[in-house]
Amino acid sequence: MSLPAPGISQQFSTAEQRGMELALQAAGQGVRGANPLVGAVIIDPRGEVVSTGYHRGAGTPHAEVDALANVPSGREAELADCTMLVTLEPCNHRGRTGPCSGAILEAGIGSLVYAAADPTDQAAGGAQRLAAAGVAVRTGMMPQRAQELNHRWFQARREVRPFTTLHIAQSVDGLIAAADGTSQWITGEEARADSHGIRSRADAIIAGNGTIAADNPRLTARDRAGAETPGQPLRVVMGRRKVPADAAVRGTDGRFLQLATHDPAEVLAELAGRGVGHAMIEGGATIASAFLRADLIDELVLYLAPLMLGAGTRAVADLGIGTLAEASRWRWDNAGGSARTLGADLRLHLEPLPFRGTQKGK
Amino acid sequence: MSLPAPGISQQFSTAEQRGMELALQAAGQGVRGANPLVGAVIIDPRGEVVSTGYHRGAGTPHAEVDALANVPSGREAELADCTMLVTLEPCNHRGRTGPCSGAILEAGIGSLVYAAADPTDQAAGGAQRLAAAGVAVRTGMMPQRAQELNHRWFQARREVRPFTTLHIAQSVDGLIAAADGTSQWITGEEARADSHGIRSRADAIIAGNGTIAADNPRLTARDRAGAETPGQPLRVVMGRRKVPADAAVRGTDGRFLQLATHDPAEVLAELAGRGVGHAMIEGGATIASAFLRADLIDELVLYLAPLMLGAGTRAVADLGIGTLAEASRWRWDNAGGSARTLGADLRLHLEPLPFRGTQKGK
Repeated sequence: MSLPAPGISQQFSTAEQRGMELALQAAGQGVRGANPLVGAVIIDPRGEVVSTGYHRGAGTPHAEVDALANVPSGREAELADCTMLVTLEPCNHRGRTGPCSGAILEAGIGSLVYAAADPTDQAAGGAQRLAAAGVAVRTGMMPQRAQELNHRWFQARREVRPFTTLHIAQSVDGLIAAADGTSQWITGEEARADSHGIRSRADAIIAGNGTIAADNPRLTARDRAGAETPGQPLRVVMGRRKVPADAAVRGTDGRFLQLATHDPAEVLAELAGRGVGHAMIEGGATIASAFLRADLIDELVLYLAPLMLGAGTRAVADLGIGTLAEASRWRWDNAGGSARTLGADLRLHLEPLPFRGTQKGK
Repeated sequence: MSLPAPGISQQFSTAEQRGMELALQAAGQGVRGANPLVGAVIIDPRGEVVSTGYHRGAGTPHAEVDALANVPSGREAELADCTMLVTLEPCNHRGRTGPCSGAILEAGIGSLVYAAADPTDQAAGGAQRLAAAGVAVRTGMMPQRAQELNHRWFQARREVRPFTTLHIAQSVDGLIAAADGTSQWITGEEARADSHGIRSRADAIIAGNGTIAADNPRLTARDRAGAETPGQPLRVVMGRRKVPADAAVRGTDGRFLQLATHDPAEVLAELAGRGVGHAMIEGGATIASAFLRADLIDELVLYLAPLMLGAGTRAVADLGIGTLAEASRWRWDNAGGSARTLGADLRLHLEPLPFRGTQKGK
């Protein structure tokens, strides 16, 4: 992160620190994907919370705009005396939702503190614009926590690739299919609906040639009634063997792409060039393992069905790990809840241990 | 359950039903093992809760005694006008803690409602004794829910065998050891301490000959400092190959037993004859699978470490399940929490789906 610009103060009151704490908590109510988790809190001169907001995922209002929308009616005139605490530097670009810096200026917020700088070219400059327009802008509060909240999103941005989500539906003994190959349905309707929710938020779904040949899946995002949701993700098949002309995955909407490679990094680079911000890894085990081996999974959603199978197919194949000390290490991700029941199943949410790439000397 | 004795009413007020609901919830705060989960609530004539109690496991006060101990001082004289709601028929035997029927009479409780009858010979008769002594005793309230709360404990009693707990410490991809066999420590200190807590409550720990040969474990219950806790469980080794004279499991306290059989039912019958009320299955995979195949695991504690290994050893071996429809079905057990973090790990608690034995025609 660059040093604060001259004139930007580093002093923070107890109320401001409490406000940023609340903003970080609010951010964690959001959903991971193409956009980072962001929370915003507005406090008045007495330090009382005026409103709170957070970002609910790509295509929905940014946290700052959400917090401004939540200001109780009649209190708008006070905002010049209020301070906004936001976990990430306000954006300065007109995406699907308009620049936050503009919304903050329009609302007349007098003072702003942000925790982490926005490293992306298109969004950066928000703080400068606000300061230039006369808003008292400060940074340097809880930067580590704000960075850690989105550490894999920042990493994906640095590596110029989409944020990736792997989902696995398995028995408590770690199997995705029984000995005879039956796997429909290990998990129940609620878990499947949740999984289709991730699909519908993703810009692309990636599957291997083997999965296409075995299951002939459509790879579309569907609602509980089975109807396709609006804004379908790009359906991407990895592998050299040509996907048959009558394969369901081809569909008729032109949103199909085959990439003749087994290299996850190559696939993600190609998708980044096509504007994909969030990719969901559908599987099977070979594809999932290739992404895991390359440390290219940013988020793991694990649906655990309360059943045991004994024999069957495992969710991941060899990861090149020979001994326990080399294990791929994760942590429970509190964003949206680290563990919650979905019907009869349990939904677990994990993310890679922060900064393990650095520890491995990357 | 036998019909209520003549003169026992089946009418329940709303306050009584609410009280039993609270008693069922209180019961769920307890711990499974040699004794069933039991909760008790005392309400006054206005329907207000006077006190609540539950059983915390073998050797601790029964729920009724706990509820009586929790009566606010100065209100003891009111108990003649109060009603106790208890989820299981009060016991009538002098175990480690004295009979509950006696304690209830001594406290002068005027009226009692119990949900499920106690099927055990030694404990039964508590309701009759109370009724004979002039307490207004009623039953028939929420009997199914009270039965289901302890369905596997009732089943173990019917089958005249100990209640059994299987614990597994595995990676999220379902492995208990890496490719080279390293397994210490997949889970962290908190999970290991929790596991030793189960050991210290159990009357016996069962391991297979293979585990003894491979790891030479002591199979003792130890505290965080590594010291053996008081009242060590019996250490039971299954298998025909003689445990070496210098094996750590033999110890020096005489609490060691080898049973030359691979049949879980035979082992449990032998242990029941020796007064074992709660047995913990230590493993390895062959032993765990044998108990699972025989439907002789009443409780599963699964420690999930946030790591992936790809290749390695699975926690269970073949269960004789060929297809998904034959899967061994469980449910999340809320008693003590179905999912909670223990340090970096997640502790999941499962029990077999109620009455599945009946559905399989047993």
